[in-house]
Amino acid sequence: MAVGLKPAESLLPVAGVRLASDASGIRYQGRDDLVLIELAEGSQTAAMFTQNRFCAAPVAVAKRHLHQVMPRYLLINSGNANAGTGEAGLQAALDCCGAVSNEVEKVLPFSTGVIGEQLPVDKVISSMPGLMKDLDGDAWLIAAQAIMTTDTLPKGFSKQLPIDGKKITITGIAKGAGMIRPDMATMLAFVATDAGIPQSILQAWLTELVADSFNSITIDGDTSTNDACVLIATNVSGVVVENDDDQKRLKLAFKEVFSQLAQSLIRDAEGATKFVCVEVKQTASQDEAKAVAYTVAHSPLVKTALFASDPNWGRILAAVGRAPLGELDLQKIDILLGDVAVITAGQPDEHYTEAKGKAVMEQDEITITIALGRGQQSAKVWTSDLSHGYVSINADYRS
Amino acid sequence: MAVGLKPAESLLPVAGVRLASDASGIRYQGRDDLVLIELAEGSQTAAMFTQNRFCAAPVAVAKRHLHQVMPRYLLINSGNANAGTGEAGLQAALDCCGAVSNEVEKVLPFSTGVIGEQLPVDKVISSMPGLMKDLDGDAWLIAAQAIMTTDTLPKGFSKQLPIDGKKITITGIAKGAGMIRPDMATMLAFVATDAGIPQSILQAWLTELVADSFNSITIDGDTSTNDACVLIATNVSGVVVENDDDQKRLKLAFKEVFSQLAQSLIRDAEGATKFVCVEVKQTASQDEAKAVAYTVAHSPLVKTALFASDPNWGRILAAVGRAPLGELDLQKIDILLGDVAVITAGQPDEHYTEAKGKAVMEQDEITITIALGRGQQSAKVWTSDLSHGYVSINADYRS
Repeated sequence: MAVGLKPAESLLPVAGVRLASDASGIRYQGRDDLVLIELAEGSQTAAMFTQNRFCAAPVAVAKRHLHQVMPRYLLINSGNANAGTGEAGLQAALDCCGAVSNEVEKVLPFSTGVIGEQLPVDKVISSMPGLMKDLDGDAWLIAAQAIMTTDTLPKGFSKQLPIDGKKITITGIAKGAGMIRPDMATMLAFVATDAGIPQSILQAWLTELVADSFNSITIDGDTSTNDACVLIATNVSGVVVENDDDQKRLKLAFKEVFSQLAQSLIRDAEGATKFVCVEVKQTASQDEAKAVAYTVAHSPLVKTALFASDPNWGRILAAVGRAPLGELDLQKIDILLGDVAVITAGQPDEHYTEAKGKAVMEQDEITITIALGRGQQSAKVWTSDLSHGYVSINADYRS
Repeated sequence: MAVGLKPAESLLPVAGVRLASDASGIRYQGRDDLVLIELAEGSQTAAMFTQNRFCAAPVAVAKRHLHQVMPRYLLINSGNANAGTGEAGLQAALDCCGAVSNEVEKVLPFSTGVIGEQLPVDKVISSMPGLMKDLDGDAWLIAAQAIMTTDTLPKGFSKQLPIDGKKITITGIAKGAGMIRPDMATMLAFVATDAGIPQSILQAWLTELVADSFNSITIDGDTSTNDACVLIATNVSGVVVENDDDQKRLKLAFKEVFSQLAQSLIRDAEGATKFVCVEVKQTASQDEAKAVAYTVAHSPLVKTALFASDPNWGRILAAVGRAPLGELDLQKIDILLGDVAVITAGQPDEHYTEAKGKAVMEQDEITITIALGRGQQSAKVWTSDLSHGYVSINADYRS
């Protein structure tokens, strides 16, 4: 089903990062479900977590640990989200960290999978000796596969660029967006570079990068209890990126990796048959642009029209009309499907025809552009359609 | 498909209100699609309209007319929303009013149906002589049928109560909620009584009545360009309801009519297989309770779980966790499916079993109760599930 997406093929090693995975049998049979990532001493790590107040136990523990000390290990399991599990769940997350290192605060735990069931810690503990032994710099793709839940393809992306005469590598992996199938609690992304980036700017970069990637996508508007995104700079290359020009270039490379990963989540969204970009322009602020874009991207009526390849622009109009803005001058609004003008200056465009609209909507990748004529800002949101596949996946009983 | 809903059978005449309908052929063949309602001289009318900024032409005209003078006629067509139709659409709405009366400002126009097509005014004009001749006090049910679009059943409700020794009648009709099938722009409700109610309080009552009925329902979160609700007091009974006690009793009767009509829209929602009440209690304000209730009621994941009869409470938890509240003390939160405690004081309830949850979710009518332990206020929202039927109805091509 994934729209225009191929499985990640060759993911490049990042000096200072070693990975291993194992089939611990937490929930799935016959596939890996547990990943250990080891970071070199001196690595800097920044992270962002779900805003959901019912955040999962591993999120609470990872936040606390990251606040105390720079992590040396990330431990990720799929199949069980350890969410909605109360005090017992917190203890389970801590026990998993303890299985990795006596210095538990140096371990960040991540879980994704079914909500509301206790995590079988014994299985995690049993797998630990093997994981430690298997740690390998060239295991990114295996890790991308092991963290999958309802994803149909492993997701990853690598990029290299020269800085100070050395080749710097960035590699990232991610898994499934959209609050996913019965209880699957959801998005995880891990991106690392061997460059050195001062901690003072790493978190700021992450916030900025996530705003334009993982925080610019939506499948069904639900926010998982387990979402997390981690950015690591190992500095094992010895290239500390300090001057403005290098920082700009490195950030641009990160931007591409984050954008590719975020788009891959949408392309592999539950039941997706379309990859859709909603671009809102000429707004007074970026927040305003995003609010309008999300209103359109979340509308079940817009999403079912996309599924049907129906140029049903009245639904886009109606969504824009109820977006959370103050005053809105309808006379200044333009709406386009692809390159086809639908609404111009608030009126039905005189050159629009149903056939032109239909030709755009029949494509696999569709851009909806909305210009509001109230400023210079803009924002893009990537989304998918709402198909029978989505309902089937989410209405299937948890099994 | 309608969940626990029978077609309206006998709707009682309201003295001072006469109705007629005709098959004008605006879009549908072989069924009535145009309704004229005549109100007695001296009738007081209050109305509420969609908040959508892209409101339809008839909404713009009806608002303006209501501001000028008390209406004597309501003209309602189905099959064409006259929305997204620009200046030509405004002129069409005015021309329709002009076909009813030379005093155009005494006519309120309403349209529901396809967005983005011009209204064939000539068909409305042709039907007018017949409509005028057919006006009849006992035609509420026929009118309820003629205003339907994708509704599967006509919706109406009558109630009588004695005031001042006379029998006072309330009758209301309504049509389809949920932004409905391709372009169907949506909810209309007309409620009348033969009691006399001072205009000064009629609008205040309507605002209050709508808050707990039509503004407490949601199907897909979309807001139509054409929504309107009209409350009429003809005073033809001669009973002017002035004392506090009578006002209370009459308002209570209205409350029942509004509640029945609003529930009927949800019971007949597109593809609905469940009727769901989300009740949020112990909040600091009603707005807060409603915001949480809507977050749960709009979640596609909660709605697909309802369709699947899956007691997937993790999805309810996740929706509450992302609701737009400030601080939230998780330790004070209780969540129940029907009478079954799922979350107690923020922890999984120790007596909860999957079997108990499943027994509740398999019912046609389900109540989800969420207590937040932060105040004395509460609110209810009625909603439906998200089924394959919803996707089919909304992904069918407009035809």
